[in-house]
Amino acid sequence: MSQFFRLISVLDALNLISRIAPEMETEFVLLTEARGRVLSEDIQADINIPGFDRSVKDGYAVIAQDTNQATESAPVVLTSIQRVSMGQKGRGTIRRGECAYVPTGGMLPRGADAVVMGEYCQNLGDKILVTRPVAPGEDVLCQDEDFRKGEGVLTAGRLLKVQDIGMLAAVGALLVPVRLRPTIGIISTGIELVSPDRTPAFGEVRDVNTYLCGAFVEDRGGIPKYYGIVKDDPGELRAALEKAVAECDAVLVSGGSSKDDRDITAKVIAGLGEVFAHGIALAPGKPTIIGRIGKTPVIGVPGHPAATFVVLTLLGGHLMNALTRCLTSRESTRKVRLSRNIPSERGREEYVRVKILGKEAVPLFGKSGLLNTLVQSDGIVRIGPASEGLDTTDEVEVHLW
Amino acid sequence: MSQFFRLISVLDALNLISRIAPEMETEFVLLTEARGRVLSEDIQADINIPGFDRSVKDGYAVIAQDTNQATESAPVVLTSIQRVSMGQKGRGTIRRGECAYVPTGGMLPRGADAVVMGEYCQNLGDKILVTRPVAPGEDVLCQDEDFRKGEGVLTAGRLLKVQDIGMLAAVGALLVPVRLRPTIGIISTGIELVSPDRTPAFGEVRDVNTYLCGAFVEDRGGIPKYYGIVKDDPGELRAALEKAVAECDAVLVSGGSSKDDRDITAKVIAGLGEVFAHGIALAPGKPTIIGRIGKTPVIGVPGHPAATFVVLTLLGGHLMNALTRCLTSRESTRKVRLSRNIPSERGREEYVRVKILGKEAVPLFGKSGLLNTLVQSDGIVRIGPASEGLDTTDEVEVHLW
Repeated sequence: MSQFFRLISVLDALNLISRIAPEMETEFVLLTEARGRVLSEDIQADINIPGFDRSVKDGYAVIAQDTNQATESAPVVLTSIQRVSMGQKGRGTIRRGECAYVPTGGMLPRGADAVVMGEYCQNLGDKILVTRPVAPGEDVLCQDEDFRKGEGVLTAGRLLKVQDIGMLAAVGALLVPVRLRPTIGIISTGIELVSPDRTPAFGEVRDVNTYLCGAFVEDRGGIPKYYGIVKDDPGELRAALEKAVAECDAVLVSGGSSKDDRDITAKVIAGLGEVFAHGIALAPGKPTIIGRIGKTPVIGVPGHPAATFVVLTLLGGHLMNALTRCLTSRESTRKVRLSRNIPSERGREEYVRVKILGKEAVPLFGKSGLLNTLVQSDGIVRIGPASEGLDTTDEVEVHLW
Repeated sequence: MSQFFRLISVLDALNLISRIAPEMETEFVLLTEARGRVLSEDIQADINIPGFDRSVKDGYAVIAQDTNQATESAPVVLTSIQRVSMGQKGRGTIRRGECAYVPTGGMLPRGADAVVMGEYCQNLGDKILVTRPVAPGEDVLCQDEDFRKGEGVLTAGRLLKVQDIGMLAAVGALLVPVRLRPTIGIISTGIELVSPDRTPAFGEVRDVNTYLCGAFVEDRGGIPKYYGIVKDDPGELRAALEKAVAECDAVLVSGGSSKDDRDITAKVIAGLGEVFAHGIALAPGKPTIIGRIGKTPVIGVPGHPAATFVVLTLLGGHLMNALTRCLTSRESTRKVRLSRNIPSERGREEYVRVKILGKEAVPLFGKSGLLNTLVQSDGIVRIGPASEGLDTTDEVEVHLW
């Protein structure tokens, strides 16, 4: 195990993760708690929305044909037969030559098929002068125009956004079926690591990855469960992993995975379960491990925070989506030109951190240990395995983070 | 109050909100709870990061000058004097002609100024054949290269992202000064409204805005506090508003704000405090109210969910940022071409919902009551007040939501 396995491609790594991620079960949560969760069942409209023909403006419900000839200089005169109040059914029926005042959102009386905005009407007692023609259906939201009863409004696998919560309220879904939040175990390994509350002695380094992985998991809708620092000791790591896989839906182990005599993570995972991949054709992030213990996926991510973050963004996010069967991409991209050329090695995917300044993406070349460029950068640019690099004439897609 | 005030511009509305938003106080939270919060103080590095010269690769620490002549056919021979272990101080000093094995992240022994990757070295007992020259500093992360002790790493007003949490761990900030989450009162008004758990009778409509506003507030880092449905009754609204302004940092009142005899929201706010603006040159969203009761901002948003959502996105998000003095833009945009022309009226800002299909933004023209287009759309395109519309030759910026 002192050598990398054959490197696998990023695509193969993603497929592998999809294959080994177990499916989170469904729970029902209150609508007020459902934002950011992944819907686990299709949702249908339980009623027509709206349930009646509604006015979209404050104005007069009319028969559109009556207004055909209306102009500012020669208004059409209609007789106002009622004022409809909000939430109330209009009385009677509008006949030719008649109209009724309707507020925004109010119900159109029978017979009316359009609304003339108040601005185009003059009120003379019960006579209304209409100065503009309207077409049938104008400023009316027809019953079932939004959704028909029984029609699908949201589908399983959707990450519920703010506006979806509004939609669910409209169809009366006050209890929402969503995937359980995955609990993700987090273990940092490295003999050099100390807790951030300590001032590191010479040669020691504060444990950044526990917090980076935890915040990432939480950001992607999971619950991080922390198992602390393991000092590159196989026995200690085995004990921590056994506990974590028993308590969690997946486990992230950072550090201890580079091609070196310290490489114990892969050995320990292999001892307890299976290692499917050790080494991905990816820079930074090559020493990544994908394995499984029992039914629990275990991902070994690099120890250097900047490399960790690239692997989390590419593979960790995919793992969270796979566990929750989430079909919504959270990825946000922006197309910009590069400020300078980026050379690259063929045969692996390379991800370069960039900062967006105006219309340009400025590559932040940095050694993979640099937190500085991680915090300064706006995202990463991918250089495909067949490419020798990108130049300033190309428009590149920045994957924002 | 049955007429709109003079319409104000969106820019004036934003400035007004900045002016009346009180400043949230600071609290200290655990680093594991800090993601998504707004930093309230500048943070400095408490130590050099890294605290020592670290190797970025598994390889041999060397004096770069020794490798000047190294080639694959004529390697330079160096004497390995030690193996440095992770987290441990190298012993002694590297002299000309000497080298020492260092793992990734390990400390360089004194004297060495570069690392040759293991791939370019051949190990013959204590003799190491180096087949490639390295420059001084190569594959070394120098002490304080990331951050110098005392250097600022993150500034007040930053919305803490995942990678910032890693940065805070590195500087030992396990307790993080952040703004209190604003508590936002939410009141829905409208005589036609019923709770979503009810099947609406003819003329009734389910209350969508309570849930839409609540999810929005939560998404922007606030705590929604729900005051239920008020049936367009001034006394009832006054009582709900008095309670809400006493308990919350700001209040959102939806509905009851259009230019009509139902328009009680502005009257009630004016009766209890001040109304600064009633009507914004914005479509959809014109009947928006900006006021204050005591020191608590009160925003009246339109009753139609799709219009509500535009106003929340433009003004509600700004309110949340103003309360927490957040300087990070959460806005995500994408430049694309329009699939068809969009006409617009001059003199107001217009926001058209669009769906992004491939490289095109397809306008979803919809009456403002349509939840359908809200859920289908990916964001909005702004048409400025001086413009008569946008056409397919323009590249437009989609504000994603």
